[in-house]
Amino acid sequence: VSDSGASGLAQGVLEGDRRALARAITLVESTRPDHRRDAGALLDTLLSHTGNAMRIGVSGAPGAGKSTFIEAFGLHLVETKERRVAVLAVDPSSARGGGSILGDKTRMAALARDDRAFIRPSPSGGTLGGVARGTSDAMLVCEAAGFDTVIVETVGVGQSETAVDEMVDTFVLLVAPGAGDAIQGIKRGVTETADVVAVTKADGELHGSAQQAASEYADALRFLRRKYAAWAPMVLVTSALTGDGIDDVWDAVVRHHEVLASEGVLAARRREHAVHSFWARVREQLLSRLQDDVDAREQLGALEREVAAGQVSPTTAALQVTELA
Amino acid sequence: VSDSGASGLAQGVLEGDRRALARAITLVESTRPDHRRDAGALLDTLLSHTGNAMRIGVSGAPGAGKSTFIEAFGLHLVETKERRVAVLAVDPSSARGGGSILGDKTRMAALARDDRAFIRPSPSGGTLGGVARGTSDAMLVCEAAGFDTVIVETVGVGQSETAVDEMVDTFVLLVAPGAGDAIQGIKRGVTETADVVAVTKADGELHGSAQQAASEYADALRFLRRKYAAWAPMVLVTSALTGDGIDDVWDAVVRHHEVLASEGVLAARRREHAVHSFWARVREQLLSRLQDDVDAREQLGALEREVAAGQVSPTTAALQVTELA
Repeated sequence: VSDSGASGLAQGVLEGDRRALARAITLVESTRPDHRRDAGALLDTLLSHTGNAMRIGVSGAPGAGKSTFIEAFGLHLVETKERRVAVLAVDPSSARGGGSILGDKTRMAALARDDRAFIRPSPSGGTLGGVARGTSDAMLVCEAAGFDTVIVETVGVGQSETAVDEMVDTFVLLVAPGAGDAIQGIKRGVTETADVVAVTKADGELHGSAQQAASEYADALRFLRRKYAAWAPMVLVTSALTGDGIDDVWDAVVRHHEVLASEGVLAARRREHAVHSFWARVREQLLSRLQDDVDAREQLGALEREVAAGQVSPTTAALQVTELA
Repeated sequence: VSDSGASGLAQGVLEGDRRALARAITLVESTRPDHRRDAGALLDTLLSHTGNAMRIGVSGAPGAGKSTFIEAFGLHLVETKERRVAVLAVDPSSARGGGSILGDKTRMAALARDDRAFIRPSPSGGTLGGVARGTSDAMLVCEAAGFDTVIVETVGVGQSETAVDEMVDTFVLLVAPGAGDAIQGIKRGVTETADVVAVTKADGELHGSAQQAASEYADALRFLRRKYAAWAPMVLVTSALTGDGIDDVWDAVVRHHEVLASEGVLAARRREHAVHSFWARVREQLLSRLQDDVDAREQLGALEREVAAGQVSPTTAALQVTELA
């Protein structure tokens, strides 16, 4: 886009135009050098209109019921809380270049149709770091477009959870109750990342085991290292089918946000994330400039293979790269 | 050191000369460009003599009894298992440039006097990333000097634990029992990083509460997300005073090592760590070359402050840096 195109795009985003919003997110997710420059100019224009949303991460292992929960949660917020909800995704499987489990446009159909909500399929391709960077910028774009609630969704895998946790204020972990023995059914338990744990599917046959799982998780969390001195993670029982507990999750998120804000932790977290992102982007750009050179890129690849094979130490290999630059 | 100095140093390390070992570690920890080059040459020479040690991380909150445990554990290994034990430290408080709680040379006096052991005070200054890089290289130097057990110690804080976890094979988390109510006394619980949890101080008045804490941690761990499908974290009760449980920790470490090796996880972990280190070092070096320029360094500092103040987005600021380079 030209300069006038970029400022037109910013104008469209600020007016809440959905096509402009979608185009702006595509722009900030792009890795093309000319797109990066336009994205920088766009974000510069939008910056003063960002920072006012509740930033919520939602994670859970496959089968925890993420899409179902987010749709019920999002609809509840737009229908009864007058919130405007954007849903973004960080999906490491799409980062690996394969098909994206989160990109399915048929997911969350009712929420997607609601004009108080905006659902963005996950970006495809790129590294996890690159995908997370794009999502972090897409969050700013959504805030500038007037969304006061941004949900960043990820699958329950270590590194992508950490990346999402760093960019949001509150992290909600979804866990499904086990059919029969709760513990046997729970392949992936809680982590210290969770601010709120929501046991899903607490309806019908699973109602009892969901209650049981919640009580066991609450017990276990007392022995888990605390993320904040001022906040003990809460465990709630929810059903997207009956709507039970959905409002409790929102209340917990709001309370968590208030506690963090009153302790000054919220502003500090956001500031640290911004500074950390800045340095990560600087390092990434310096490397990508080096990789623009075909010879350098080939030698980097060769050195990586030698390091992986144990033929050279990481330190020795890295020093050889500096000689290339 | 000159070229002949570097090869003389490598020779000294391989012969197990302790002064050469200490000097070699100082060299690999240094950030001076000429030292980095010498360090690269040294590590290149030593590389084929590395990789044969058990790499063990030990962490715990202040008051968990880390020094006392490591001394008892190390003495047990040299006296009854014919192991040669090196102890290194990653200390984020020293990385911040303040006094180092781990650098105290009076710690572990009996182990320090034993010539089958080698204790290295933590490096002072530098970023956590830099300190971790130096420790990772120091580990290779210790292996080349014939130490078959390397213990990397860190205080129980999120980022330094992750850095240590990445460079070791087995992560031992130390937790102290609470006096009276175990839970009240436990300010910092377990994390998913732990492969082995050792409750310390299980002697005298605390014997009962240590047993109780161990049983509660074991319960809680069943609900914590698993680090490996093939390994459920073990909880053990130990006393450095009576020696109870110290051998059990070693047995657990050995078993964990065997399980990881038989599943092919051990080699994959080490390979991934090496590749990850390589790219981290390349990015760090490219940035540090840019910072060699006084003007660029000043502008980076100014941009960081603007990002922290919310005056510019990380993406926009990072793009301005690329124009400097």
